[in-house]
Amino acid sequence: MRAAGKNYRTVWMDGASVFLIEQNLLPFKFQIYESKSYLETCFAIEKMLVRGAGAIGAAAGFAMAQAVLSGQNIEEAKKRIESTRPTAQNLFYAVQRVYNAKDAQKEAQSIADEDAQNCRKIGEIGSELIKDGSAIETHCNAGWLAFVDYGSALAPIYHSHKAGKKIFVYVDETRPRGQGARLTAWELKNEGVPHAIISDNAGAYLMSQGKIDLMIVGADRIAANGDTANKIGTLEKAICAKEFGIPFYVAAPTSTFDKNCKTGTDIPIEQRSQNEVLFQSGITKDNQVEEILVCSPGSTAINPAFDVTPSKYITGFITEKGIKTSPRTGAGFVQEIF
Amino acid sequence: MRAAGKNYRTVWMDGASVFLIEQNLLPFKFQIYESKSYLETCFAIEKMLVRGAGAIGAAAGFAMAQAVLSGQNIEEAKKRIESTRPTAQNLFYAVQRVYNAKDAQKEAQSIADEDAQNCRKIGEIGSELIKDGSAIETHCNAGWLAFVDYGSALAPIYHSHKAGKKIFVYVDETRPRGQGARLTAWELKNEGVPHAIISDNAGAYLMSQGKIDLMIVGADRIAANGDTANKIGTLEKAICAKEFGIPFYVAAPTSTFDKNCKTGTDIPIEQRSQNEVLFQSGITKDNQVEEILVCSPGSTAINPAFDVTPSKYITGFITEKGIKTSPRTGAGFVQEIF
Repeated sequence: MRAAGKNYRTVWMDGASVFLIEQNLLPFKFQIYESKSYLETCFAIEKMLVRGAGAIGAAAGFAMAQAVLSGQNIEEAKKRIESTRPTAQNLFYAVQRVYNAKDAQKEAQSIADEDAQNCRKIGEIGSELIKDGSAIETHCNAGWLAFVDYGSALAPIYHSHKAGKKIFVYVDETRPRGQGARLTAWELKNEGVPHAIISDNAGAYLMSQGKIDLMIVGADRIAANGDTANKIGTLEKAICAKEFGIPFYVAAPTSTFDKNCKTGTDIPIEQRSQNEVLFQSGITKDNQVEEILVCSPGSTAINPAFDVTPSKYITGFITEKGIKTSPRTGAGFVQEIF
Repeated sequence: MRAAGKNYRTVWMDGASVFLIEQNLLPFKFQIYESKSYLETCFAIEKMLVRGAGAIGAAAGFAMAQAVLSGQNIEEAKKRIESTRPTAQNLFYAVQRVYNAKDAQKEAQSIADEDAQNCRKIGEIGSELIKDGSAIETHCNAGWLAFVDYGSALAPIYHSHKAGKKIFVYVDETRPRGQGARLTAWELKNEGVPHAIISDNAGAYLMSQGKIDLMIVGADRIAANGDTANKIGTLEKAICAKEFGIPFYVAAPTSTFDKNCKTGTDIPIEQRSQNEVLFQSGITKDNQVEEILVCSPGSTAINPAFDVTPSKYITGFITEKGIKTSPRTGAGFVQEIF
């Protein structure tokens, strides 16, 4: 997708180097990081220069290829790469696939290509839901930055925009980390998709005014009954969307579905640092990055990073294999997806 | 209530001067402004050194008293004071009462005292709803800073805390202006009430986990059928509270009820500057106040400041005259309140 006037993927391999967009600097600075060894790629994953399940998986696959190409001890490299991040299943999946492959670099490239293709398919399939003139609300960032290309929730939006449909996107700020206001808005601006940032508080109001036709979000993990873990605040939006009769879709590649989680209660919720709530970073008038305290000094904060939306609030799932209506009852849902 | 180790009201008169807490500097600096003339008091209202319907009303009444005491042209002074802020009904009510009174200073003092007394009553009455061990969620700032003393939504919390009940308050950050994270948290810390700030996105998650027993919010205007205008995001919380079976109360003096508004659709919603979403102010590590851009540069924002919660989502209203269950049907509700 477009960034700094060119087309990019979030991560790619060229010769023995892995290149990736330094996402921790966005939206205030666009910079490419060149990793010349698998250890440097591990560093990039650990330090969140690359983030998002699909992008992490691709980077981990490329790291394995770097280790093979440079004649490292593969068992050792595998362990090191697997230790970078604990949660994203894509990481372990990609490392194992390259480990088993005859041609490591070719396999790593396939993993990245498949991620991009699956997201492109989600875009094509999901765009059927978007009518000309639609206003879509989205939460957090499930765009191309979270994958190798296209994204999940944003892919149908990009596809519709390129097909000439007139659409408008309401971008939830997504406090505390502001991935909507920072990453989703940045992506949409680069692609020329009309949009506006809204505070997370404004969702139900806009729904009550008939301003939202459709809501699409991504997912971090989807349980076997359709319960969906995603960025904190998704549950609130899903409840409100149902209340106002607005379709609420989750867009995700099938790799996000987890057969081993029966229901949402099996998905652990990460509690993150209170500093993400208490402090905000951004740029000053002099274009300097600055972090400031935005809350009353001396108060503490609680910061659950994700919530679980029960499938009864979800209209359907958009995957690379098609659109699947939400099960509501739950039984055997994931089996049908695969 | 407590501030800087002493008991304060938000606004008071002593001799010919009006004193008020400079709320635009909170929570980072506590400072008292002394106004020596009615024109200086007008300036303080206009520039939002004092804010909140009850506090504005009291300040306007004192300004009229200053004009009378210093022998100004009263018709002229009345017009000038009425021109400071357009919305708060309390301002016009207070100015008219002092204008009609024989003893201007006494009448202005009565208005301030009545506001404080009504809020104290709301605290006593509302605390019946708060059981020992309760966790209460609140949105925005409906504390003593918005009135002369005690507040509306926070008054029952203060009363319960002073009565020795063990309570915990979840404070919604309340983006974009952050009145929860800044003013409510500051008030609660000064009173020693256990609390934590949460991002606005975390409400439904905490409700789903059984962490919230009760929600209390304030109101900017309440229509004749019980529909309530309040800070943006109130509607979302009310919908979620109903979904999870959590009592949702609006606390407000009867002066907030507007007979002339039949339903919530008659209440206009103020659209405020997008800069409140795009920028955040706070303090740096060096204790300097700084404003930073927190969103992707070049994107625009939409900033509705209030929303309307239909009465069907409201469990009841806490006023100085008692607790009134929400009408749900709406007919003749306000008549019963008065």
